[in-house]
Amino acid sequence: MTMECEGRRRGGREARRQLRAAPLEESLRPVRPGLEGGRYRPLSEADVRTIHAAALDVLEKIGMAQALPTCIEACTARGAFLNEHGRLCFPRSLVEDVIAGAARRFPLYGQEPRHDLEPWGTKVHFGTAGAAVHMVDLKTRAYRESLLQDLYDAARMVDALEHIHFFQRTLVPRDMVGAVELDINTLYACIAGTTKHVGTSFCRPDTLNMGLEILHHVAGGEAAWRARPFVSLSCCFVVPPLRFAEDACRCLEAAVAGGMPVLLLSAGQAGATSPAALAGSVVQAVAEVLAALCYVNALKPGAPAIFGTWPFVSDLRTGAMSGGSGEQALLMAACAQMGQFYDLPTGVASGMSDSKLPDAQSGAEKGYNHALVGNAGANLIYEAAGMQASLLGFSHESLVIDNDIIGATLRTIRGIEVSEASLSLEVMREVCIEGPGHYLGSQQTLELMQRDYYYPGIGDRTSPKEWAEQGRTDIVERAGRKVREILGGHFPTHLVAIDGLLRERYPIRLPAEAMRPATRGKAA
Amino acid sequence: MTMECEGRRRGGREARRQLRAAPLEESLRPVRPGLEGGRYRPLSEADVRTIHAAALDVLEKIGMAQALPTCIEACTARGAFLNEHGRLCFPRSLVEDVIAGAARRFPLYGQEPRHDLEPWGTKVHFGTAGAAVHMVDLKTRAYRESLLQDLYDAARMVDALEHIHFFQRTLVPRDMVGAVELDINTLYACIAGTTKHVGTSFCRPDTLNMGLEILHHVAGGEAAWRARPFVSLSCCFVVPPLRFAEDACRCLEAAVAGGMPVLLLSAGQAGATSPAALAGSVVQAVAEVLAALCYVNALKPGAPAIFGTWPFVSDLRTGAMSGGSGEQALLMAACAQMGQFYDLPTGVASGMSDSKLPDAQSGAEKGYNHALVGNAGANLIYEAAGMQASLLGFSHESLVIDNDIIGATLRTIRGIEVSEASLSLEVMREVCIEGPGHYLGSQQTLELMQRDYYYPGIGDRTSPKEWAEQGRTDIVERAGRKVREILGGHFPTHLVAIDGLLRERYPIRLPAEAMRPATRGKAA
Repeated sequence: MTMECEGRRRGGREARRQLRAAPLEESLRPVRPGLEGGRYRPLSEADVRTIHAAALDVLEKIGMAQALPTCIEACTARGAFLNEHGRLCFPRSLVEDVIAGAARRFPLYGQEPRHDLEPWGTKVHFGTAGAAVHMVDLKTRAYRESLLQDLYDAARMVDALEHIHFFQRTLVPRDMVGAVELDINTLYACIAGTTKHVGTSFCRPDTLNMGLEILHHVAGGEAAWRARPFVSLSCCFVVPPLRFAEDACRCLEAAVAGGMPVLLLSAGQAGATSPAALAGSVVQAVAEVLAALCYVNALKPGAPAIFGTWPFVSDLRTGAMSGGSGEQALLMAACAQMGQFYDLPTGVASGMSDSKLPDAQSGAEKGYNHALVGNAGANLIYEAAGMQASLLGFSHESLVIDNDIIGATLRTIRGIEVSEASLSLEVMREVCIEGPGHYLGSQQTLELMQRDYYYPGIGDRTSPKEWAEQGRTDIVERAGRKVREILGGHFPTHLVAIDGLLRERYPIRLPAEAMRPATRGKAA
Repeated sequence: MTMECEGRRRGGREARRQLRAAPLEESLRPVRPGLEGGRYRPLSEADVRTIHAAALDVLEKIGMAQALPTCIEACTARGAFLNEHGRLCFPRSLVEDVIAGAARRFPLYGQEPRHDLEPWGTKVHFGTAGAAVHMVDLKTRAYRESLLQDLYDAARMVDALEHIHFFQRTLVPRDMVGAVELDINTLYACIAGTTKHVGTSFCRPDTLNMGLEILHHVAGGEAAWRARPFVSLSCCFVVPPLRFAEDACRCLEAAVAGGMPVLLLSAGQAGATSPAALAGSVVQAVAEVLAALCYVNALKPGAPAIFGTWPFVSDLRTGAMSGGSGEQALLMAACAQMGQFYDLPTGVASGMSDSKLPDAQSGAEKGYNHALVGNAGANLIYEAAGMQASLLGFSHESLVIDNDIIGATLRTIRGIEVSEASLSLEVMREVCIEGPGHYLGSQQTLELMQRDYYYPGIGDRTSPKEWAEQGRTDIVERAGRKVREILGGHFPTHLVAIDGLLRERYPIRLPAEAMRPATRGKAA
């Protein structure tokens, strides 16, 4: 009551400023990882069942081409069969049994437990992904080759950004030569840069097995790794339509054997490698991922796998990908619903702007995609930060901007609490009949200003006058300042003790001095 | 079939290009005004009923302050009463009767019938609104005073932009002096610049009546005006919390008498003039608008009125408005649901970026707000284009950018068609087993490329290489080109015949020569 009276005396502003200064514990924060979505439903329940039935038809009657002998052996032992075209087909009952028995409540671990994720139900998490081959230089607007240092920096950025909940590798370090150097250094740059859950890819099973050795060292032994696998495999197991990708399937087998969770990623492109009809594109993606789920569970029942339906959109005028379109939001949100229908941990993609720069087009494409895909309740939303040019380009500034967009999106996912207190009848009565005629200093306002409201990191809410006084910046300029601040100062140290041993045994190319702040002399 | 075969021979691209060149009739276009939303539901059905009950409580137990004598007389005759605090209270049964009898299926007319809107059910329309006092100069980043010419230009821009379905005045022409000059010229700049439905405001009932005279002239007589009223009154009838605004109420009465539809606009600000709890803010807005609905229907049963719940958001650290926040999207989407519960034509606001510039922040704020408010199925979405700085600034370039964002949003509202054809099983079978292994030239792709896919006007989807060759533009630069193209060439001529007569009788300040293209000599 004292606080309320003080608040009223000072018009509320000073009291609000004081309260704002104190940090909140996680459970009281306005947004956090794992908020529950599901209030946006692009498909009716009947639509969902119809799509499911169609996907089962596809698996039984068309089937998958190019299955590895190991895949055919494992799957036919469970009831799959090769049809007259040599395609591996999955009877309806097999698929339904696999769905029923698949792993569905496994966490994705961080190197630090505070970053563990629980990707099930309608809980939503946002993270990165991608295989960009360019970094975007925002000063010159040049697209230059992406390098290993850029990847390590991206991991550090994500480590420091609150609303990006996991780090899947975002870019291909084009200074790495050959599969071993590429795969091992991609892995190491990611796990050294962040203690959040990491996703990555491997070209070959032997490099994946070498990666597993590294992960055993980092975890403190194989058993410790298997107890808390903190790296997942992003596996493009399919070359749509309906054809297994052989090298990726070999990696899939190695990951399943090694206890590494697998993102079963089907990335057809509507109108090019999947049907132009959006519903058909969803059917094909669902069928492909269910085929892979059968495969994984035939190899090892209950192995952790993520339902990774990523049907992309083509601009049908040119055949080029359009990751920022409204159609893209519909496809991914629909896939989130399909994953919920199966009650499988579901990963989709959102935030893939077509714009080459983080401009208003980019912001809008990311904004409407995140809002719809997030509110559909996808468990893991990949490609959610940093991507430009339909996944060809990556930018650290975009990471910072997108962190803000995700924060606001999470606030929409949190929704509106309707309770006797939040209906506010008593507050309204007091303010109107007894009170000051406004709510600025009321106890409710003071209590809710931190718990209920999300405040952007670099988003600007000043008046035009204040904004002019502060230099008339746009968000890219403010993002640049934040990038310099993080990259200049944020060097996770969790691998310092093991770094030397790993450098002795594996071809690690990231210079050790890149992993600590520049000394004063060097900086000068 | 011939076309399909040709398409296949040429790999599809040339056939797609040819098809693309032919314009589509409206019913086949990928997006159009009045697509049906309703797939995003921030409130449960129980939440909706709880909020409704709370709003009825507020109207019965707290009531509205500052009712005009005419309002008290009309409303008490229908069953309202003044309580011990002199507040006008509305019994539950009165409110329910008014809701049951209110107008709910009236079109908003354009000056041309092709622009008529049907704002009911979950049909969605986007338009402008606002009372900005600044134009944003994107070259210098200066905020300068907004002028009458800017307003006329805004109307012309909207007239030419496909996805902005109505034009409510966006800015205050600060070169107009006094209520008569301001109101009459605001009206005339709007109706002269576009044949789409117009919304505007008036300071006083006498200026509104003068406006009605003008509208009679334009329509060809009072009866013609009353048959197709193509201008609505945006009426801020309330100074929240729960206090009638006397001047606005006098205008409301004049509009109802004159057959002008009224947007009953309640614009509280959560944490300042409405409760900080989001649910309470919705309750207050609903109660206020229902009070005004009782008022309108007491004056004239069945008079056309729009349920205009616009609960705004404060940044509680400063008390300043934050129109671009995620909380804002929740509030407006929830109000759309409330309006659907009442089956009343519902107008809310979306797209009010806090950013001073059309940068990535602005794009994102508009993107996620439009996606959620649009998919909630609000009938009329005001403030949807052109606004910056939480409604303080306006930009023609932003109009063009936002037209693209709305187009993509409309595509998401259209949703995913699930039918036997769209499930695509036969197409998939053909492509995988008999066909080329891709869908680029398939008949389905050719048929759907125009009907199912939205293509942005100025949004860029080129590859990084093409983009570099084309000058590495951002969307603001491309929007600038479009603004110059429209403002240089688009001069609606529908008022040419009446312009001279109106200039004789009313203080019209827009120079006649501003209403036609510059001559070659003048331009040089």
